[in-house]
Amino acid sequence: MDLLKEKILKEGIALSDTVLKVDSFLNHQIDPLLMREIGEGLAQLFTDEVITKIVTIESSGIAPATMLGLIIGAPVVFARKKKSITHTDDVYTAKVKSFTKQDLNEIYINKNFISEDDNVLIVDDFLANGEAVRGLVDIVKQSGAQLIGVGIVIEKGFQKGGDSLRREGIVVKSLANIKSLSKGKIEFYEDFE
Amino acid sequence: MDLLKEKILKEGIALSDTVLKVDSFLNHQIDPLLMREIGEGLAQLFTDEVITKIVTIESSGIAPATMLGLIIGAPVVFARKKKSITHTDDVYTAKVKSFTKQDLNEIYINKNFISEDDNVLIVDDFLANGEAVRGLVDIVKQSGAQLIGVGIVIEKGFQKGGDSLRREGIVVKSLANIKSLSKGKIEFYEDFE
Repeated sequence: MDLLKEKILKEGIALSDTVLKVDSFLNHQIDPLLMREIGEGLAQLFTDEVITKIVTIESSGIAPATMLGLIIGAPVVFARKKKSITHTDDVYTAKVKSFTKQDLNEIYINKNFISEDDNVLIVDDFLANGEAVRGLVDIVKQSGAQLIGVGIVIEKGFQKGGDSLRREGIVVKSLANIKSLSKGKIEFYEDFE
Repeated sequence: MDLLKEKILKEGIALSDTVLKVDSFLNHQIDPLLMREIGEGLAQLFTDEVITKIVTIESSGIAPATMLGLIIGAPVVFARKKKSITHTDDVYTAKVKSFTKQDLNEIYINKNFISEDDNVLIVDDFLANGEAVRGLVDIVKQSGAQLIGVGIVIEKGFQKGGDSLRREGIVVKSLANIKSLSKGKIEFYEDFE
């Protein structure tokens, strides 16, 4: 995903040693052509797997997950962060601490949309401490579905989330893995380049 | 958009006279192939217009807006509902009352992502009382951009939002326009079929 890395280097802003702002193409403004490339890149990361459902979380996971879904022909379910009155059925829930917003959300997915027959790929835009992905993994486990793995657009590899999940035997793959944001400079891990 | 209407009739549930649940393909689970059709349908509704930016609101507007953006080659900006620490710049804001969640949200878009040179199409999944669209129209006006119109996936035409916007001279077009949800039966307006 050279295109993604070029975009991160060109438009990403290291706001601090831990916060990368990619608002101009990923999580506020969306570049649809890049998003299609991201969908194709994620499909290639899991090309040997049969995926029957893609699970993500609102809001920034929706665009990459939908593009991947279009490419591999699988439906997408996005976990929601708050109950709304149109959700009256039974739901799977998990608690997730937001890294950037510093608050605790309950996320949920309607039980109708994941079954024990599903092979689930979790997709998200960012992986830092892994709280959102852990919540989604928790929900997939509750459903009895098989977890194929986790596909991430941008992993902040210097934070603990990805490695902690991998140590537990979960397959986590990222299109771009950031080694450091220190002094305003964005550096990637070599082995992902 | 016969495919959309078929899907609404097949999978939509009229929970009450005003609430239509389409969680299985639009706002919880997403059918990516239908979403591409929706993107193509929206493009056809505004085929004579030059659109430089698509503006929507998280979360359920993101997938249709991104598919439309891919088809017409325009970037998407989605308004966010809460300030996060990665948003430090100046933002346009508007207040929006949620129809389904019965609460008041402040929505915002970073000033970097809409300029007075833009021709903006607003896209959303639902149009009922029009509160979300009004908030987006407000933001587009603040930016000085030209508002081309509003493209909606499902309008609940029996509610006042769409007609109220049209009376103000705003071009509002919908792929499916619902006449009634009474007694659990979903009926469309004939002139949109």
